[in-house]
Amino acid sequence: MRDFLPADKARRERVLAVIRDRYRAHGFDEIETPVMEDHARLHAGIGGDNEKLAFSVLKRGLDADRIRGCADDPTALSDLGLRYDLTVPLARFYATHRAQLPAVFRAVQIGPVWRAERPQKGRYRQFVQCDIDIIGDPTGRAEVELIAASLDTLDALGLTGGSIRINDRRLLDGMLAGFGFTPDERPGVLITIDKLDKIGPAGVAAELRDRGTSASAVAAFEEFLARDRSAAASVGQDAIRAALPDGVDGAVVAELAAIADAVAATRGGDTPLTFDPFLVRGMGYYTGSIFELAHPSAGYSLGGGGRYDGMIGRFLGVEVPAVGFSIGFERIVDLVAAIGDGGGESIVLVHDRDVPAAEVAALKAGLIADGARVRLEQRPKNLKALLERASADGYTAFATVAAGASRADLDLRPLS
Amino acid sequence: MRDFLPADKARRERVLAVIRDRYRAHGFDEIETPVMEDHARLHAGIGGDNEKLAFSVLKRGLDADRIRGCADDPTALSDLGLRYDLTVPLARFYATHRAQLPAVFRAVQIGPVWRAERPQKGRYRQFVQCDIDIIGDPTGRAEVELIAASLDTLDALGLTGGSIRINDRRLLDGMLAGFGFTPDERPGVLITIDKLDKIGPAGVAAELRDRGTSASAVAAFEEFLARDRSAAASVGQDAIRAALPDGVDGAVVAELAAIADAVAATRGGDTPLTFDPFLVRGMGYYTGSIFELAHPSAGYSLGGGGRYDGMIGRFLGVEVPAVGFSIGFERIVDLVAAIGDGGGESIVLVHDRDVPAAEVAALKAGLIADGARVRLEQRPKNLKALLERASADGYTAFATVAAGASRADLDLRPLS
Repeated sequence: MRDFLPADKARRERVLAVIRDRYRAHGFDEIETPVMEDHARLHAGIGGDNEKLAFSVLKRGLDADRIRGCADDPTALSDLGLRYDLTVPLARFYATHRAQLPAVFRAVQIGPVWRAERPQKGRYRQFVQCDIDIIGDPTGRAEVELIAASLDTLDALGLTGGSIRINDRRLLDGMLAGFGFTPDERPGVLITIDKLDKIGPAGVAAELRDRGTSASAVAAFEEFLARDRSAAASVGQDAIRAALPDGVDGAVVAELAAIADAVAATRGGDTPLTFDPFLVRGMGYYTGSIFELAHPSAGYSLGGGGRYDGMIGRFLGVEVPAVGFSIGFERIVDLVAAIGDGGGESIVLVHDRDVPAAEVAALKAGLIADGARVRLEQRPKNLKALLERASADGYTAFATVAAGASRADLDLRPLS
Repeated sequence: MRDFLPADKARRERVLAVIRDRYRAHGFDEIETPVMEDHARLHAGIGGDNEKLAFSVLKRGLDADRIRGCADDPTALSDLGLRYDLTVPLARFYATHRAQLPAVFRAVQIGPVWRAERPQKGRYRQFVQCDIDIIGDPTGRAEVELIAASLDTLDALGLTGGSIRINDRRLLDGMLAGFGFTPDERPGVLITIDKLDKIGPAGVAAELRDRGTSASAVAAFEEFLARDRSAAASVGQDAIRAALPDGVDGAVVAELAAIADAVAATRGGDTPLTFDPFLVRGMGYYTGSIFELAHPSAGYSLGGGGRYDGMIGRFLGVEVPAVGFSIGFERIVDLVAAIGDGGGESIVLVHDRDVPAAEVAALKAGLIADGARVRLEQRPKNLKALLERASADGYTAFATVAAGASRADLDLRPLS
């Protein structure tokens, strides 16, 4: 967990302001849920491996007897937990408030989540997630809105040139069925395929064989993996078919192609999508399209998402289609070097010790009323060091104030 | 703990944006600390009664034996806790990062805190605090900056007419000493005086007598309390002296008067301060000035603060002066009925079912590029209900889209 000092915090808030502004323009409505959810809800199986990393909150008022009684069932010590993602809270929120929400609900959620990860570079136990979700739209229009909004947001942050890899769980499932993997084997095979970028085709085949997966299916899959995959496939219907074994589901292919067409239409005809038949995305709840956001300046994914039509129903008892996109806020903040702070001039007012508080206060108030940001400083022995510090903090001008000075006496000088 | 639906969340974010903008203009730098702090630090005695309300986070990896071992020391179950205020984290932050901060550090912190309160109207287990603090300035100039910035923020939120009650713990202590309360008795007497508005002078005297406090001191205090206190005292030196028993500390009186003068100088001469000799403020750590923010539209305090010169030293080992002001974000949000959302036009695009996704997406992108906020809707049976809903959600115009429509075909009509 990290402290954020002023320069970092200011950058984070400016990035958040851009994200909020863009998602709002695209018709998404921001909501907020509490950081704690019921312990049982956080451990209902939706969160996958993240559930094991959840922080649990101790029940209040436990005495020695009750604690001893929990020794063989530690979960009884806890009634609440810190959320490890924003998807479980969203599903709970939607089930609670559905009657007050539009029929197609476009949600933005931005907030911290917690995972008890072992400390390592680039992994934090508290980090901000930034999710958009469309609940209630079964068509590919929802995917188009999510992808267009996310690319527009990246553009607005100065990160132009973002691109999307897309696939569909139904195509993956059909492909694996075609190779002869049994329905029971397929979830495990997906987990292995997800490592393809790291361990390569030979590594994938070896892991599947080690696990005792159907030998003929592994052999067929290995042969397919050996095909040239160097050219990223475009997302036209023919290109998708060419990148897959025979016998794919034509309706799904047409859906993906229509999504790519529509995203291109929002960007002057440029198609920032590529089809990747081996894109898996980790979570078990995806049921349709899946996608991942990349940018030339980063060697890792900047976000991703997919369709999870089954999940809301687990909370609501009624099936409702849903699709979401999570952008990697912490990674994006690291890439955004500097964005304008939108403020007026930033002025340091250096006053002598004997200037009455009322005079200093009035001068400061006048400059603020004119749109400036003002930091007061009592004149130190080393004025140069103080001004260098202020300049590093983003201040752009300074003036010295002697007793009796009026606004007209202020001689504003630039800080280099 | 509460969910926030779109209208409430939008209002909260707009209020936060105004608060951030104003405090920034007044030279405060925003920081952020993790929501969890070490359990021991949260229970070091600084938080007063709030410590009892802290949520504790369960240690990870506890087995049955370790849980049984904690039965007689429940605190051993927990290594972390959720913060119950922003003051303890600030003191820890300052002690950690002092070398990287300006000599006089003006901090803004905005974030949620948690208290395991029993549910009751207007009390929440998760709520946002919004603190500004000045660390490193022993003079009343710091109080002036805090008060001027907070009143300016209230003005910017449309809550003009805010006022400040001010007192000083040193004056309170001197007054109680003058009545004959012993040093040991005075902290308890302050807690009782804090209830003056609720239980009245007779109630205060009765509670002190019940507790066995020095009878002669209680009698002297009761006589003083019986004086006419109907007129709010101005914060001139003479008025402060007149509102107190004889023998007050003249230097402290002069400090308060100078603070009032300087705040008035930032507001065209209006003095929004009154002196209240019975203002206490609950926390034990205050050492000097204390103040509370009121507004004519609310029967309760909208915030407050004071000087706590001793606290930073407990973390740092070196005494550093500090003074803070916390505005009651949740209460202020409730008072701010509506503030502009600063956006352009908000447009609902109602498309027929057969309009290709690419056409709809392109029309939406074009309107967004021109500065609008756009919500897509597929035409429902009941268009009127849909438009009423959108209007309630803040949308201001709509257009219907048929297949083949171009931007020029869009006939934008106002939503009533």
